[in-house]
Amino acid sequence: MAASAGFPVKMGSEENRAGCSCKGHVSVSEASTQTDTKVQGHIPRLSKANLFTLLSLWMELYPKNKKDQENGTQQIRTTGLVVVNNRQITGLHCSSTELHAGQIAVIKHGPRLKDCDLYFSRKPCCTCLKMIINAGVNRIVYWPADPEVSLLGSKHRSWDAALDASAAERLKSNSRPHICVLLQPLASNMHQYVEETSKNCDFLGEIACENPKLNVEELFAEHRRQKLADYLKVFFVPDEAQHKEILKIMGLQNLCCEPYYSSLRQHMRDLLLVLAAVDSSVPQGHGYGFYCRDVQEAGEGLSQDIARHCVVQARLLAYRTEDPKVGVGAVIWAEGKSSNCDGTGRMYLVGCGYNAFPVGSEYAEFPQMDNKQRDRETRKYRYIIHAEQNALLFRSKEIKEEENTMIFITKCPCDECVPLIKGSGIKQIYTVDRDSGKDKDDISYLRFDSLQGLQKFKWQRNIEDTKSLEQNPTAIRTNGFLGKHGRQVEEEHWTKKKACLQDK
Amino acid sequence: MAASAGFPVKMGSEENRAGCSCKGHVSVSEASTQTDTKVQGHIPRLSKANLFTLLSLWMELYPKNKKDQENGTQQIRTTGLVVVNNRQITGLHCSSTELHAGQIAVIKHGPRLKDCDLYFSRKPCCTCLKMIINAGVNRIVYWPADPEVSLLGSKHRSWDAALDASAAERLKSNSRPHICVLLQPLASNMHQYVEETSKNCDFLGEIACENPKLNVEELFAEHRRQKLADYLKVFFVPDEAQHKEILKIMGLQNLCCEPYYSSLRQHMRDLLLVLAAVDSSVPQGHGYGFYCRDVQEAGEGLSQDIARHCVVQARLLAYRTEDPKVGVGAVIWAEGKSSNCDGTGRMYLVGCGYNAFPVGSEYAEFPQMDNKQRDRETRKYRYIIHAEQNALLFRSKEIKEEENTMIFITKCPCDECVPLIKGSGIKQIYTVDRDSGKDKDDISYLRFDSLQGLQKFKWQRNIEDTKSLEQNPTAIRTNGFLGKHGRQVEEEHWTKKKACLQDK
Amino acid sequence: MAASAGFPVKMGSEENRAGCSCKGHVSVSEASTQTDTKVQGHIPRLSKANLFTLLSLWMELYPKNKKDQENGTQQIRTTGLVVVNNRQITGLHCSSTELHAGQIAVIKHGPRLKDCDLYFSRKPCCTCLKMIINAGVNRIVYWPADPEVSLLGSKHRSWDAALDASAAERLKSNSRPHICVLLQPLASNMHQYVEETSKNCDFLGEIACENPKLNVEELFAEHRRQKLADYLKVFFVPDEAQHKEILKIMGLQNLCCEPYYSSLRQHMRDLLLVLAAVDSSVPQGHGYGFYCRDVQEAGEGLSQDIARHCVVQARLLAYRTEDPKVGVGAVIWAEGKSSNCDGTGRMYLVGCGYNAFPVGSEYAEFPQMDNKQRDRETRKYRYIIHAEQNALLFRSKEIKEEENTMIFITKCPCDECVPLIKGSGIKQIYTVDRDSGKDKDDISYLRFDSLQGLQKFKWQRNIEDTKSLEQNPTAIRTNGFLGKHGRQVEEEHWTKKKACLQDK
Repeated sequence: MAASAGFPVKMGSEENRAGCSCKGHVSVSEASTQTDTKVQGHIPRLSKANLFTLLSLWMELYPKNKKDQENGTQQIRTTGLVVVNNRQITGLHCSSTELHAGQIAVIKHGPRLKDCDLYFSRKPCCTCLKMIINAGVNRIVYWPADPEVSLLGSKHRSWDAALDASAAERLKSNSRPHICVLLQPLASNMHQYVEETSKNCDFLGEIACENPKLNVEELFAEHRRQKLADYLKVFFVPDEAQHKEILKIMGLQNLCCEPYYSSLRQHMRDLLLVLAAVDSSVPQGHGYGFYCRDVQEAGEGLSQDIARHCVVQARLLAYRTEDPKVGVGAVIWAEGKSSNCDGTGRMYLVGCGYNAFPVGSEYAEFPQMDNKQRDRETRKYRYIIHAEQNALLFRSKEIKEEENTMIFITKCPCDECVPLIKGSGIKQIYTVDRDSGKDKDDISYLRFDSLQGLQKFKWQRNIEDTKSLEQNPTAIRTNGFLGKHGRQVEEEHWTKKKACLQDK
Repeated sequence: MAASAGFPVKMGSEENRAGCSCKGHVSVSEASTQTDTKVQGHIPRLSKANLFTLLSLWMELYPKNKKDQENGTQQIRTTGLVVVNNRQITGLHCSSTELHAGQIAVIKHGPRLKDCDLYFSRKPCCTCLKMIINAGVNRIVYWPADPEVSLLGSKHRSWDAALDASAAERLKSNSRPHICVLLQPLASNMHQYVEETSKNCDFLGEIACENPKLNVEELFAEHRRQKLADYLKVFFVPDEAQHKEILKIMGLQNLCCEPYYSSLRQHMRDLLLVLAAVDSSVPQGHGYGFYCRDVQEAGEGLSQDIARHCVVQARLLAYRTEDPKVGVGAVIWAEGKSSNCDGTGRMYLVGCGYNAFPVGSEYAEFPQMDNKQRDRETRKYRYIIHAEQNALLFRSKEIKEEENTMIFITKCPCDECVPLIKGSGIKQIYTVDRDSGKDKDDISYLRFDSLQGLQKFKWQRNIEDTKSLEQNPTAIRTNGFLGKHGRQVEEEHWTKKKACLQDK
Repeated sequence: MAASAGFPVKMGSEENRAGCSCKGHVSVSEASTQTDTKVQGHIPRLSKANLFTLLSLWMELYPKNKKDQENGTQQIRTTGLVVVNNRQITGLHCSSTELHAGQIAVIKHGPRLKDCDLYFSRKPCCTCLKMIINAGVNRIVYWPADPEVSLLGSKHRSWDAALDASAAERLKSNSRPHICVLLQPLASNMHQYVEETSKNCDFLGEIACENPKLNVEELFAEHRRQKLADYLKVFFVPDEAQHKEILKIMGLQNLCCEPYYSSLRQHMRDLLLVLAAVDSSVPQGHGYGFYCRDVQEAGEGLSQDIARHCVVQARLLAYRTEDPKVGVGAVIWAEGKSSNCDGTGRMYLVGCGYNAFPVGSEYAEFPQMDNKQRDRETRKYRYIIHAEQNALLFRSKEIKEEENTMIFITKCPCDECVPLIKGSGIKQIYTVDRDSGKDKDDISYLRFDSLQGLQKFKWQRNIEDTKSLEQNPTAIRTNGFLGKHGRQVEEEHWTKKKACLQDK
């Protein structure tokens, strides 16, 4: 495979790892550095390519119905897919029992695939590849582990899989889109930053606040350890010889030489570590979940698994923030009435975004101080476009009155966004409301509580879950059932409410 | 503000005032002359920029529910907005009690704002500005009076307003879209032409015809006087010192010097005078309105206020006509089932147009004679695309079967357009039918009367309105209740009809 | 008409006739050769222009309700229309009793007409032309026989028609779109190939198989003879003097000189012959039709006339195949709930396609062997995108859950396409299932029979039709009611089924 001959991986300090790109045509501004130059001196950011890659891996893990869960040794592996058009995410998909991720892209996007970039969590099979190429996509990026047509299976299956792999190579060499691996090195302080912000994010913060004797740091570390172990099983080929064999069959023999191979493995592990940390910032199974305790509101919410999955998507997006201090992510999904061919069932992406300065200007040109600064003219607040605003602005689908549309936000929406969310026709908000009720002059969170006409699913403890934090020996109840905020009065209402959701 | 240094206003005869543009990048062909060169020797036309500006002012006056009417001294002022994409109007909006016009643009257009021009009736606040800039709009034009965040208010409010204004300037200097004032001088004979055609348009003509002793000219003049007084209150800052102060806070200090300042004021007054004349051509409160007297037709019409508002939009569009004699305008609106975040409630624009020769050819190449000319080959009729046709052709939304879609036309639709309107799925026509039943060989109006399957709301006297023209001392009833056309037979049907609409 | 002065027709051998194009700006790669260079040495293909022309003629023949059938001597003739955007068909239309084809294009496509190519089966009238030109279309192509405003009528009518024709010429000379005749010579072996593949296609094959003593070849020949006679009446002006007169009135006087005129007539006849052969491959009135005999499936199918019309569209598309052996075509239509202004009633096109190698690569680069070849790596199957896949990929409309969407395929869908069709939300399949149940290793047809959740209308004999093949003296029943497949068991179910369709 000639295209990867110029493979530009340079080994060296961890800070200096360059991008892994099979076809080298990626423009320097996009791929050659992890973070844009304008972020120098600021908090580290994920590159777009790494963000999309992480989201594709995360989409592969989209919660499945039990009956849909397949055997790990099957020939066709579940695959996550991120569709990107003009640098905006227009689709988050996951293969179903009936259809491959590529087939879902054809059904869901059809002619809109033209000029898109597709990020797969596994190399797609040639049946999908031929259609996607014919659709006129710009780039097909895949994670360099076991492909969709598994090469880890039995001998007989491998023969078909090898035929598939060789056909994929032939399609690649005859077609216009770039078909490539595209992993980029993380900024030197990325891991530390992700760990800090995950540990201190509002979700774990809410738990810490309500359970003061709980060692949240330990809880987080334990979670992350477990998640990383899980990911290495799914997204990594532990045996190096076997991995190299797979890479060779996929036409990536150039990636098998040192120092490129070690570099590749390190990039893969680095990204999985980021994913594990972010995943652990919204912990499962400790009695916490997204609950709507407003009696007047009818209608059911999502399963906790899916709500959590979408919130973690928003958490990942927050690592593209341009804000000097606080990253916020927002994702809008809707529940369609119809075709459930997608691995996400009836759920489809409407839009997503993170907080950022206006496009087209290097953000150092704008004031960046926060409300600790006296001079209000040098504060950032009038210039930053919020995650919710960007999610609405760059939505890829319209919000339909007759469907249930949901927004998932990593922080309580402010007074600027609350009327926008309501006016847009969104029906459910999934968020953590630690800032609710605060007034910081330049930015205030006073309107969220009194917001009527849509359902607010807040991250909080499930009253009925008696086991709750007991599983964790460090978890100790504070006095009062729900911690210091004392929501006892609401309990009675709440237990009557049919919309309450169980954390499975 | 360096951008307006090259401000190209030249004082001189009223006929020779050039365009007011803050950022000077507007191409000559578009902005430097009021009317396109091809209209030399013909009737005067409004430039597109002036048309959009007038429509933005008019949208600010969109009828409000009583409960929505706000206090005149509020900090945030109601603002009208025209969204233009590729020289076509794709949205007519008005801020609501909950949302600014800019927020409504984000909710209603989202990613479709890219490359659009936005015409605001007031300078938008920086919260809206940052989102609109981020959406990638091409140009943001505003009327240079009191901005959305009013600078006329109390001291305390002014401080916030000044912070907002200074942030807006900073956003402007760092962003790609043009953010500017764009007023263009009118052609020398524009005022006279607008007055003549308003006075003689079919709406006043219908009244004159049915009330022969009425002095319609006086009625028109009185209306216009009143309207102009109203507009000067809303769209003008009468005190020059205060106006200059506002301009300075908005970063338009260059506009405060003479002769530019006088020129600016004159341009503003000129446009308001045009609006007042057009507004007066469809007079309110003289017992006339849009009524559907067909018993078979079910369904209610719009309130008279809103119907009239939309018809005046069409009347404004008619001043972009390319027809050598008769300007016609058409506007299509639909009533959505859902989100009423817009100041227009559930009403949204589908399309609009005026009569014109085919695009891409200077129209002098086409025959321009009318049916007074013997030689049929030199007549214009086979070449002019009608207002209704252009409104359908350049619609920005699809016409939905399940929604009520309405067309507002300044003239009775001809036999060429009637089947087109019906086939398109439009359900209501608001028009004046003075030409109905006429056959002019090249163009005939025979099919409108027999048109079935949609409701026809015709401009006519409200039978039940006993006060009618009595308010005006010159108004005298003709013999017979409804004037010379003698519709007494229909009265009985009509009074039974539940769909009848009251002129409030 | 200066534009056709450079008319590039070269007389010579039938193989070497060049394209007839009035405006000569058609790029060489598109128009100068019948078949793309990459097909050298392969089966002949229809050029895109010829395919679109054939489809426009065929759309003119779209089955009409009896009450809609107009008199043949009317002034306005029914016209077929193919709308092509970026080389993809986005609309197949037919004028109705109320609206011309051009008006339907305005209503159905509106602003999406920009940059489209429109292929009319007759030159459109100037009322439609002015709107279409104003919409910014790229090219207007028409069949050079009697125009929409018939020039074959009485004297009085001719005067209006002549005015229309002269206005059309003036519109043409002042406008940007190409308005032209565009007929291209067929490849030398095209007729033979179309005849062979029509005679041996699965539809006639199914009849031949079930009626072994029937001379299918004779049946086909008789059909084609009849069809050609019909077409010559509708699409040809038999009298040469009259034809030349019409061409002159339409501004095509340059086409009246020899050798261009003979060449034009020959091209017209050639295309009509292709259409007659393809039309005859799905014979009417011999007891065969598209029937769904599955008791569980509710819902009615289309009338046999319309189903057959759509299948013949797919058969025409199959002649653009890039497969070295088997051409397949697929067309997707949906039945809207609403506006029936189109001559196709509530039916509207969703997408269409044929089988081909991935776009952008000359197909000789891909393996082309079939499963007779031992070496599986050199087989074509992993590289060819199927007709159904392309129809979905390049659809111009979304598939809506609440509407009945149908796919028409010239061959039984394979196991690769079956889940794709089901997942896409298509509700009815019209096809011939001669391959159903076969497993050819590289391509198998095992899943079609067990496909649940949508209706399968298969090409088969209508049990109730007692006349059946008796009309044709050579038709003899095989033993058993339904031929060798013996479906007697199903009969009882089937006669109970309300969804059964009668072949009228």
